Amino acid sequence: MESIKIFCPATIANISCGFDVLGVALESVGDEMVIRKVPQKGIFITKLVGQDLPMDTENNVAGVAGLALLAESDYEGGFEIEINKKIKAGSGIGSSAASSSGAVWGMNQLLGEPFPAIKLVQFAMEGERLASGVAHADNVAPALFGGFTLVRSYEPLDIVPINSPSELYASVIHPQIEVKTSDSRKILKTNITLKDGIRQWGNVGGLIAGLFTEDYDLIGRSLVDHIVEPIRSILIPGFDEVKAKSLEAGALGCGISGSGPSIFAFSKGALTAEKVTLEMSKVYQDFAIDYDVHTSKINTQGIKTLTQ
Amino acid sequence: MESIKIFCPATIANISCGFDVLGVALESVGDEMVIRKVPQKGIFITKLVGQDLPMDTENNVAGVAGLALLAESDYEGGFEIEINKKIKAGSGIGSSAASSSGAVWGMNQLLGEPFPAIKLVQFAMEGERLASGVAHADNVAPALFGGFTLVRSYEPLDIVPINSPSELYASVIHPQIEVKTSDSRKILKTNITLKDGIRQWGNVGGLIAGLFTEDYDLIGRSLVDHIVEPIRSILIPGFDEVKAKSLEAGALGCGISGSGPSIFAFSKGALTAEKVTLEMSKVYQDFAIDYDVHTSKINTQGIKTLTQ
Repeated sequence: MESIKIFCPATIANISCGFDVLGVALESVGDEMVIRKVPQKGIFITKLVGQDLPMDTENNVAGVAGLALLAESDYEGGFEIEINKKIKAGSGIGSSAASSSGAVWGMNQLLGEPFPAIKLVQFAMEGERLASGVAHADNVAPALFGGFTLVRSYEPLDIVPINSPSELYASVIHPQIEVKTSDSRKILKTNITLKDGIRQWGNVGGLIAGLFTEDYDLIGRSLVDHIVEPIRSILIPGFDEVKAKSLEAGALGCGISGSGPSIFAFSKGALTAEKVTLEMSKVYQDFAIDYDVHTSKINTQGIKTLTQ
Repeated sequence: MESIKIFCPATIANISCGFDVLGVALESVGDEMVIRKVPQKGIFITKLVGQDLPMDTENNVAGVAGLALLAESDYEGGFEIEINKKIKAGSGIGSSAASSSGAVWGMNQLLGEPFPAIKLVQFAMEGERLASGVAHADNVAPALFGGFTLVRSYEPLDIVPINSPSELYASVIHPQIEVKTSDSRKILKTNITLKDGIRQWGNVGGLIAGLFTEDYDLIGRSLVDHIVEPIRSILIPGFDEVKAKSLEAGALGCGISGSGPSIFAFSKGALTAEKVTLEMSKVYQDFAIDYDVHTSKINTQGIKTLTQ
């Protein structure tokens, strides 16, 4: 196999209570990439459409993730990468993670899968380091593993796949305002109260239990964040209204996707999710803020081959 | 039914990463209680053997828990309670929880089960409030529900039953030193770093996932506590040695049971658990500190009827 065309899913990180540890992959929104073996050593971004992003390897997340893989491979050649960005950069639904994990997943396929998934996560994390200054794994893990994933630990890196209930759907709205991941990290406090910590790990436990037992009410009750959401939501005009309207429309829960500005909601069933997406849209229509919306099943497979 | 004899299991609360939210019931150690309907309104502790504890209703945990139930019941009579304490008070394996949850569970049986389990937890929490000053639910919930339980939230109270892997066994050692729950709460810090919080909820997520998927290695990797154990273990001489020897003997993980001084370890299989218990014992033999030990399956049923 000399080239591969793949779908790289958008992802929701944090998921309310699971700050820095939980993430989930989406089915109906993601980038497309073509990755091609070339004789010359190195990573070459030969095409990048859909977003205005750097194409030089060292400044491109797919480039640096690819270089991390190459550094540990005995492959003597290189790769050309074409990226069709359908996920907007800075949207908070794992745009950089889709590119960086797609690059290393595709390269691994073309090399005959020498690296296990956990190594691919590590390579892709280098893309995240470039994008946000922090080599976080909560978007690249679900992009690579599919479904819900838990980053149990960074040292050593330990990714735990979590069951994805079959009737769970996500609504996502991306208001067209800029919130940089690095800025949205800066405003977080270094310390939290033990009391808030206890509430947070109670909810993380409840969410994981709800996902395994497919208890949608428990999932909803656990989608609570006392620590990050109260601070970060200030950066997202309309957040409280979107959340209130989503819950009113039947969503199980609603929160900030990653570091924002996208807002996600989970619902049981496609119809409710569509209704939630509609109600989210109305809020930004009223505010005259441009937005994108997505309604999506959970993607349980992760990155997928489109054509070889 | 006029009287009932019941078994009230010992419980391990906190379980390393799950401070204040996780607990589990044990099969082979617990109190026995006899509860009997009497015409006179009130709760009467008529017998209390095995431990030197107050028998007046208002100062007995079973008494106050029973009064909490009576206050919400339309039953016109009262109950006599006999308690055979086999769990030492102050041992850190839910001695007060066994008595208070046993009292209300037995009374509920005799009344024809008018109250759901969640109400019994609330009544039993009044016993915990008397014992420790804090109406915590992490021991009474597993005593009443059996198996592993998560206290997802206190307001409103939300108890989540968690799967108990069939080959999981607990070793518990109780060194005969006194650590008061109230003291061991006082030394905790009010604030924690966000970084430690993230590690803790990563481990709670991993533990819950490991319990549902019966992944014993994941359970072991998740039995880590960066927040409470480093502080509380100072109060327990020999803790570090017991932990090191337990892990060496094959335990999946080891930590403080409740607020101590008991130390628990989980193992896969009865034989490994017996070996771990033996190694724990040797540590306190060397220190010439008296101790009790228990090796136990997980109790998945909670409180049980012995004879009616």
